[in-house]
Amino acid sequence: MHSDKDTIKDVDEGGKGSIAHKLAENMKEISITEFFEKNKQILGFDSRTKSLLMGVKEAVDNSLDACEEADILPDVYVKVEKVNDDDYNVTIEDNGPGIVRKKIPDVFGRLLYGSRFHALRQSRGQQGIGISATVMFGNINTGKPAHIKSKIDGTDAVAWKMDIVIDTKINRPIVTNEQPFTWEGKAHGTRVDYCTKGEYRKGKQSIYEYLKNTAIVNPHAKITFDDPEGKRHTFERATDTLPVKSKEIKPHPQGREVGDLQKMLQLTQQKTLKAFLKNDFSRITDRIAEEILQAAKVTDKKAAAVTREDCVAIVKAIDTVKIMAPQTDCLSPIGETLIKKGLMTVLEGLRPDYYAQPVTRSPRSANGNPFLVEAGIVYGGDIPADSEVSILRIANRVPLLYQPGACAITKAVESMDWRRYGLDQRGGSGKPFGPAIILVHVASTKIPFTSEGKEAIANNEDIHNEIVQALRLCARNLKSHLNKKDKKGKTHAKFEIVQQILPEMASKSAKMLNRPVPDLSRTISKIMNVVWVEPKSSYDGKNKIKKVTYNVYNYTRAERSFRLHAILPREAVNETLLSDRFLNMNDEGKANWEILSVPPFTSVSVSFDLVGSMADTFSESDVYLSGVNSAFVMGADPLPGDWGIKGMEITESDTDVPDEAEEEEEEAAADDDDGKRKGGKEDDE
Amino acid sequence: MHSDKDTIKDVDEGGKGSIAHKLAENMKEISITEFFEKNKQILGFDSRTKSLLMGVKEAVDNSLDACEEADILPDVYVKVEKVNDDDYNVTIEDNGPGIVRKKIPDVFGRLLYGSRFHALRQSRGQQGIGISATVMFGNINTGKPAHIKSKIDGTDAVAWKMDIVIDTKINRPIVTNEQPFTWEGKAHGTRVDYCTKGEYRKGKQSIYEYLKNTAIVNPHAKITFDDPEGKRHTFERATDTLPVKSKEIKPHPQGREVGDLQKMLQLTQQKTLKAFLKNDFSRITDRIAEEILQAAKVTDKKAAAVTREDCVAIVKAIDTVKIMAPQTDCLSPIGETLIKKGLMTVLEGLRPDYYAQPVTRSPRSANGNPFLVEAGIVYGGDIPADSEVSILRIANRVPLLYQPGACAITKAVESMDWRRYGLDQRGGSGKPFGPAIILVHVASTKIPFTSEGKEAIANNEDIHNEIVQALRLCARNLKSHLNKKDKKGKTHAKFEIVQQILPEMASKSAKMLNRPVPDLSRTISKIMNVVWVEPKSSYDGKNKIKKVTYNVYNYTRAERSFRLHAILPREAVNETLLSDRFLNMNDEGKANWEILSVPPFTSVSVSFDLVGSMADTFSESDVYLSGVNSAFVMGADPLPGDWGIKGMEITESDTDVPDEAEEEEEEAAADDDDGKRKGGKEDDE
Repeated sequence: MHSDKDTIKDVDEGGKGSIAHKLAENMKEISITEFFEKNKQILGFDSRTKSLLMGVKEAVDNSLDACEEADILPDVYVKVEKVNDDDYNVTIEDNGPGIVRKKIPDVFGRLLYGSRFHALRQSRGQQGIGISATVMFGNINTGKPAHIKSKIDGTDAVAWKMDIVIDTKINRPIVTNEQPFTWEGKAHGTRVDYCTKGEYRKGKQSIYEYLKNTAIVNPHAKITFDDPEGKRHTFERATDTLPVKSKEIKPHPQGREVGDLQKMLQLTQQKTLKAFLKNDFSRITDRIAEEILQAAKVTDKKAAAVTREDCVAIVKAIDTVKIMAPQTDCLSPIGETLIKKGLMTVLEGLRPDYYAQPVTRSPRSANGNPFLVEAGIVYGGDIPADSEVSILRIANRVPLLYQPGACAITKAVESMDWRRYGLDQRGGSGKPFGPAIILVHVASTKIPFTSEGKEAIANNEDIHNEIVQALRLCARNLKSHLNKKDKKGKTHAKFEIVQQILPEMASKSAKMLNRPVPDLSRTISKIMNVVWVEPKSSYDGKNKIKKVTYNVYNYTRAERSFRLHAILPREAVNETLLSDRFLNMNDEGKANWEILSVPPFTSVSVSFDLVGSMADTFSESDVYLSGVNSAFVMGADPLPGDWGIKGMEITESDTDVPDEAEEEEEEAAADDDDGKRKGGKEDDE
Repeated sequence: MHSDKDTIKDVDEGGKGSIAHKLAENMKEISITEFFEKNKQILGFDSRTKSLLMGVKEAVDNSLDACEEADILPDVYVKVEKVNDDDYNVTIEDNGPGIVRKKIPDVFGRLLYGSRFHALRQSRGQQGIGISATVMFGNINTGKPAHIKSKIDGTDAVAWKMDIVIDTKINRPIVTNEQPFTWEGKAHGTRVDYCTKGEYRKGKQSIYEYLKNTAIVNPHAKITFDDPEGKRHTFERATDTLPVKSKEIKPHPQGREVGDLQKMLQLTQQKTLKAFLKNDFSRITDRIAEEILQAAKVTDKKAAAVTREDCVAIVKAIDTVKIMAPQTDCLSPIGETLIKKGLMTVLEGLRPDYYAQPVTRSPRSANGNPFLVEAGIVYGGDIPADSEVSILRIANRVPLLYQPGACAITKAVESMDWRRYGLDQRGGSGKPFGPAIILVHVASTKIPFTSEGKEAIANNEDIHNEIVQALRLCARNLKSHLNKKDKKGKTHAKFEIVQQILPEMASKSAKMLNRPVPDLSRTISKIMNVVWVEPKSSYDGKNKIKKVTYNVYNYTRAERSFRLHAILPREAVNETLLSDRFLNMNDEGKANWEILSVPPFTSVSVSFDLVGSMADTFSESDVYLSGVNSAFVMGADPLPGDWGIKGMEITESDTDVPDEAEEEEEEAAADDDDGKRKGGKEDDE
């Protein structure tokens, strides 16, 4: 017996025995936990080695984010201990603000739960997945729960501890053994202990490597690591200044989709369309809101009355109206000085020859999301010369260790012709070779990672171009250093020959002719014909004092007046220590010294001390000289045009460029790829 | 006024104004829809071009899966139409079993909803994300809903249509305009129409390329594509046989974690631990369950009473007990013949010279998941000779177009030394160069993709090794073809010289000496000293008849007896058509012909016809000869040792290997990299 409704249903949906019905029986919802449990590789937990690293990474990223949000200089402790075979105990403890008791279970025991997902600002974690996934996989691997301890920053706060596992069927935490305790000697902070299957490796892609690189790009953090062999590694902080906190911003109108607008309109507190545009977006003023409505041919109306067609028109109109670029205080760059300082503190043991002046580019926008790129290059010393250049890939201050081939940073490095900058490279593209380390940091409110494991940055044209620009500037600085070193080396060899052979010849001739040995200084000057700048420095690590001296020799035939210029780390300058030849220094640390009337074959010197933790970031070889035709100068660069301060005019006598200098000039021209080499004349002495 | 409880809470959690409390205020749950909306790149929707492709891919994958599950030969129609600027209408229609009315909204309007997530068997889609994400992004882009039509396979079924959007806040479908209709001329099937922002591109990584490659590896599917320029592309099916349906299996005990076991024990229907092991896993018999319990030192107990420690012991014990590899009927390989047929049907226009015999490897297991690898190589013809070899990467019959650099298939190809197999390669690793296309298909119940966009297979040692093995076998076949071609070319040149010059010399000498022109056939035989196999074929595409003839010339000094061998596509063999020299053929199509007592300087021939759609998959140049020392044979390979059927013994006269043959033998040895070249003697004629 069928009711009408049943009959209709049968007609509607065919016989119950149909294949479509059989297929329908198996259809059901999948929980997000089950999804990630089955797709470990998306979160980066696809091998024993990687799992061990990923857990540490997720916990340390969270610790650093929490400390910075609470204006605390991070002090992070990491311990990885082998229990047996492939079982490891992992501990991460921080001095962050702690987590309030009732939020602890969700933070550690629920995927997609967090505070930063909807915030438009730079942070390491964003999705609320990482640490919960670590707890989940540890539990799947070993059946054991994670142990969490946390104490918040209230004056008389009690600490809490509890054991957490995730119920993967419903993505919710299961808490056991919850109890308060007194955490001796701890003002505030969080500690997570968990057990997991893993494999500890050294070298590339190791936990040590990750923590080392983290220390480089987080010079305000102290990180202590007890490795499974019982060895302690300590990365001291290189600065006591916290990075400028990134601010949360409203979405920028550019790059929005029709559906985004519709969704925002449903949720808006604003009454009218115009008020919505003005108040729910950044960079929209009254006037611009007006312009957008005009261009879209939409009259202002109640927010609730806006149609899909209106939204389509507004999205189109936004592209035609001039709107300021997204503001950029949502980003927190490391900064040029701190990149150098971070590299120096951590790479100390490698003793590189040269730290090229790091570059922090101005922020740009990619798909409406602000981003900026920073780059640094380290060269020479103990860095292996005959292998591929190492690339430190950093995203929002987090080092990336896996999937280099899929990453926009690697692709940008490989797209450049590094032979122009003094590195080896087969065929002018691909990985460069040589004793160098390249660091690239991409900071953004939204890094487009290729997967949730955050292993590589997806290729985006705007990001690619900015990386290339930053690297070029950095590489030019390296090239100029290498040129200077090369030229100086050659001239030095000539110098030694002239200074050895000429006096010997003179003394022999004088002896044979029975006449007094002549004064050769003018002759030697004539042959060398150069103003020689010789930087020297010594560093007292204990007292953090760097003593710098520039000896300037006038090996030319004329009297010389000139200025010396250098960019000093401002924090390290004690102005009373600057010598009396000192002229002035601006806010950026650009300092100038004036040296007048140096007679031929005499020398003068400029000395100063730098003090404090930034003292060692100064490279004395980055020095500039004005007032003398650069063709006569050895050991210093000509003052760059964008210096902002006028150097000294070149004096009359320099217009008479000597033969030797002419040759030098040609070399310089050849370096720029735009000069043809003329036959150099032999010196007639 | 505080209650006791309130006071405790305050003490527990510190002052309400603490930073920890401020941070806690922002913590909330994120819906999976919002997560993917913000992380488009994980699903592959990160650019306009890619979005357009991804939508088509997700819909077509679903159509093919549905048809195969319902034993229907797929007939899929795809239309991409430009509306304006970057707006496109996309349509995908199939002849699948249809979807029951009440399931349509969830299938198209809810992420993580589907029927295949928990099933251990090979399928294209698995997570229930792809098509819903396509609907979601289309809606975000344009504000428009997707239009779905579906009719199921009941005899008097009415078709249903409806509009669907996703409520991203809660991950649920919103349905409008739902109504029944009569779908004229349609027995069953589903059609989805949606509008999206996109950019249509041709060439690599295009929709055309994806559909073309899909047709190659799904030779049972017919695919019709109307492109935005109004051009129709039809990929006809190459076979009317559906692939063997993959079966769902129980999980294999190897590769399980402690947590997996605990979870399975919670859900099991079994009463005891032993029954659980035996019935909830594959490959565990009564005896093996017993062995596992013994090795784990756990006595059988109630399933509910099993502890974490028991699970730890059982996981360890599983590795010590011998258990059969996972069964493999959960996989559905394409098969060697159909790979060739698929390539031929689709690459017809390229007219390659040679289709190397494809290889289907036996299934293996990676982390407890069965997988198998298939490979094919196509060579020569109109394939560009001076560029990188194209690699067709296929996973579970779905072509992969993006992220080649991150993919295990690319890495395996680049790890091999292709110079050994006749392709160019700088330095013996990296991308090979030459006129070739390499196809690799990885089939598994669980492909470890690097991201949910399913663009690349994550690197896994077992999978890597199997890909390399499959490629080596395939490449050896290519190399042998190239060797044969090369040798034949050289011998052919010699033949022509001998046959032109000798008779001319003989006739001139005879004239000068005034004597009759001698018979040179024996002399020529002596110089050539070879059994020459000349394959010829013609193909009648209309009637699908391939006529094959082998002419075998005995250019040696002795009478010869031998057997000819070839592997025929069994479906194409009409045994009555085999010539009277035919001896036998086995189930694999390995066929043998016997040819006795061929006098010197005479020839014999073997002819047969192949009929039907598989006829053209036979390469006549893949022919083998036994009974003659291979050093005397030109144009056929020696019978491989693993042929399974005995060839003819080599007769006495062949032990007297002539000079010329000796030289050939050395060449063959040199090809194997293990022979040293001796000084070849000059022929004394």
